[in-house]
Amino acid sequence: MPGGAVDMEAVGGYEDILRNGDAWLRDSASEGRDGLGWINLPARDIAGVEETAKWISGFDAMVQVGIGGSALGNLMLHGALLPPYWNELPRSKRQGPRFYMSDNVDPADNRMIWNLIDPEQTVFTVISKSGSTAETMANFLFFWDRLKVDLGPKKAAEHVVVITDEEKGVLRPFADEIGCRRLVLPADVGGRFSVLSPVGLLSGAALGISARKLLEGAAEMDRRLAERNTVFENPAWLLAALSVAHYRQGRNMTVLMPYEDALERFCEWFAQLWGESLGKNGTGSTPVRALGAIDQHSQIQLYTEGPDDKLFTVMTVAEPAEEITIPETEEKALVSLSYLFGQSMNSLRRYEALSTAAAIAKSGKPVVSIEIPKLDERRLGAMIQFYEHVTALAGYLLDVNPFDQPGVEQGKNYTYGLMGRPNYSAQALEVTELAEKLSLREISV
Amino acid sequence: MPGGAVDMEAVGGYEDILRNGDAWLRDSASEGRDGLGWINLPARDIAGVEETAKWISGFDAMVQVGIGGSALGNLMLHGALLPPYWNELPRSKRQGPRFYMSDNVDPADNRMIWNLIDPEQTVFTVISKSGSTAETMANFLFFWDRLKVDLGPKKAAEHVVVITDEEKGVLRPFADEIGCRRLVLPADVGGRFSVLSPVGLLSGAALGISARKLLEGAAEMDRRLAERNTVFENPAWLLAALSVAHYRQGRNMTVLMPYEDALERFCEWFAQLWGESLGKNGTGSTPVRALGAIDQHSQIQLYTEGPDDKLFTVMTVAEPAEEITIPETEEKALVSLSYLFGQSMNSLRRYEALSTAAAIAKSGKPVVSIEIPKLDERRLGAMIQFYEHVTALAGYLLDVNPFDQPGVEQGKNYTYGLMGRPNYSAQALEVTELAEKLSLREISV
Repeated sequence: MPGGAVDMEAVGGYEDILRNGDAWLRDSASEGRDGLGWINLPARDIAGVEETAKWISGFDAMVQVGIGGSALGNLMLHGALLPPYWNELPRSKRQGPRFYMSDNVDPADNRMIWNLIDPEQTVFTVISKSGSTAETMANFLFFWDRLKVDLGPKKAAEHVVVITDEEKGVLRPFADEIGCRRLVLPADVGGRFSVLSPVGLLSGAALGISARKLLEGAAEMDRRLAERNTVFENPAWLLAALSVAHYRQGRNMTVLMPYEDALERFCEWFAQLWGESLGKNGTGSTPVRALGAIDQHSQIQLYTEGPDDKLFTVMTVAEPAEEITIPETEEKALVSLSYLFGQSMNSLRRYEALSTAAAIAKSGKPVVSIEIPKLDERRLGAMIQFYEHVTALAGYLLDVNPFDQPGVEQGKNYTYGLMGRPNYSAQALEVTELAEKLSLREISV
Repeated sequence: MPGGAVDMEAVGGYEDILRNGDAWLRDSASEGRDGLGWINLPARDIAGVEETAKWISGFDAMVQVGIGGSALGNLMLHGALLPPYWNELPRSKRQGPRFYMSDNVDPADNRMIWNLIDPEQTVFTVISKSGSTAETMANFLFFWDRLKVDLGPKKAAEHVVVITDEEKGVLRPFADEIGCRRLVLPADVGGRFSVLSPVGLLSGAALGISARKLLEGAAEMDRRLAERNTVFENPAWLLAALSVAHYRQGRNMTVLMPYEDALERFCEWFAQLWGESLGKNGTGSTPVRALGAIDQHSQIQLYTEGPDDKLFTVMTVAEPAEEITIPETEEKALVSLSYLFGQSMNSLRRYEALSTAAAIAKSGKPVVSIEIPKLDERRLGAMIQFYEHVTALAGYLLDVNPFDQPGVEQGKNYTYGLMGRPNYSAQALEVTELAEKLSLREISV
């Protein structure tokens, strides 16, 4: 039943559960419980990351092989904190190598990445907790093979960094076998919560982002949240409560709509965090990735006049790094644009964000506004920690485990079966039978 | 009430309405009715587009200024039909100039675009039906000013192409005033249906995409659809009927999940087409943009174990342009990956798509599979025309006008008010009052 109201009393009613949930999260983290390690990441030692990053920063290119939690956090950090069109900048305007993400199993992309780099001048990182991720390992096998052919096995190993579990899986022994550099993906940190571990920090730091400041911001947010113990004072409690209350009123989507191109990938990172943490047991609100002002010209019609089935967050940056004053022009035909002349482009964007939030509110739908003072390492680290708390608490309110992902196994096992992996023949049979029932219709020309 | 079943009888029940709707669409198009011009685009003369594109193709860079329907179609065509990392390729490997899209009002992006191009060697296109789109005109004013400063007004005009309405708006008189090249955005074609007009075709053709083949594919799809007049023979009728039937059973999202990086932007284009066409009068299904296999590691947990509130379309390409054979490797640590050795990367991806569709189906949620034989101009043109038909027919079934977008005006008018545009002071007052009611919470560090 979309459209149900959420009053402040209902939100306040979550306070006791949130207090318990918050204490449970922090206690479990100090006890080293599986999945809770993200809370402690801001305090971990990153000397190894910084040293490896410094070494990588002198190369011409860096190729990261990873997917999901081993890719989205990196893209988010780079998008938010590096200049746009990074790879197209001359080396003198970049604090680090060109960067390529090999996440999808896409032959065209992988081959092009190989064609664009000089293996002698490139570092390859491969990231997987277990080393069993099919996409990551298929892509890595391609690059590793080419690298050995071009440089010889010994020198090839000098161009590889492995980020994996300290004990489990195949990549740790692989690193030992070839003798390459290695960093640890902490065992108690899940993929979608790993951006402030070596997974996210290494490429960020190699490209000139301060890992230390990211962690400082995250630690500061963590402290501030720990000090506030009412739902109206603690913004993570409040946003978790609002999200769950609106979800229970039939709003099964949460739209995150930053007004800043640099935050486009923040939405992708958030979408995994939110969707994979909360989507289980038949429950879960669907994250919808949006971008202002672009989606005003794509989705706002639906957002304002469509069904009341979404909670919106409009996000702005108070002091963007760049500014443009919209110039006046003398052509008579453009005199109706004089309201733009001499105005700040950032103000226009900010007014659009405000107008969108107001138009959504006027249409009767719930909207939250979040403003980030500046987009720098400290503030981004804080936002990361903030959303991780919100997500974990929302999971606690919804009574689901926000740290597992049992639902991804079925598809993986079907793929193993189809690929002929030993011991998966039953899965191969099942997926083939299911596929026959899926109606494939001919619509080609 | 998510989870309601949709049986074939229910889908068949839409047949008469679909027959009427299809006839209405085609009759209205031949009568030149507003918004229906897209049906006739494949038959329009594109000599002007081809000539202008040929001229642009010799330049080093092309900057397109436009947003929404004047941007998403171009990005979709380029993503699907050009090699990845286009701008990073040496000129000898590209059939046309580097391409930059200035869509968002983002000072950092626009300034960087200016820094990356040589104005003497760059063509700027500005696309807006009315010339009143604030974002487009703000960005264009920036580039136009810089261009005049660098090249002088007369020479600057030689680097500009305007695509706008033949009669209305400010850009037609502007083009006459400065004496620049001009192409016509047909009056009866809406922005989100305009990709096969000069809006989408010009940049595509300038970068080496065959506009003629795109139109041939669209025309062929149009003919094939016109020949089929039952819901189970006509795939556009079937997909429209399925979409609406599932929507009416409480599935308020439609997820489009191609397994092909080149189709990532197809989802963005589809999202505008679907969301803006159907989201009105309190109705409308929300388009959810996904990408396989990446979103297996982000959204599949939610898709399979979350609520039954989505209709899924998994899209594959039968014969991708590139192939990689996953190499064998000799390290002992990687022996468990032997099931990958020697296999085709495209097969892995295809099996993952099949496995995802099967896993979704096994979880009890509805999934449609669409396979495109090849990703070339003819097939992509056909898919564009196909989805435009599906969307228009879904609008007819839902009893909304799929060709208008009244809901975007509110936010626009608020922005005009905040920017101090004459005659919008009442809007300024209203948005300010609304903004005060929106709770902005301090969460910064």
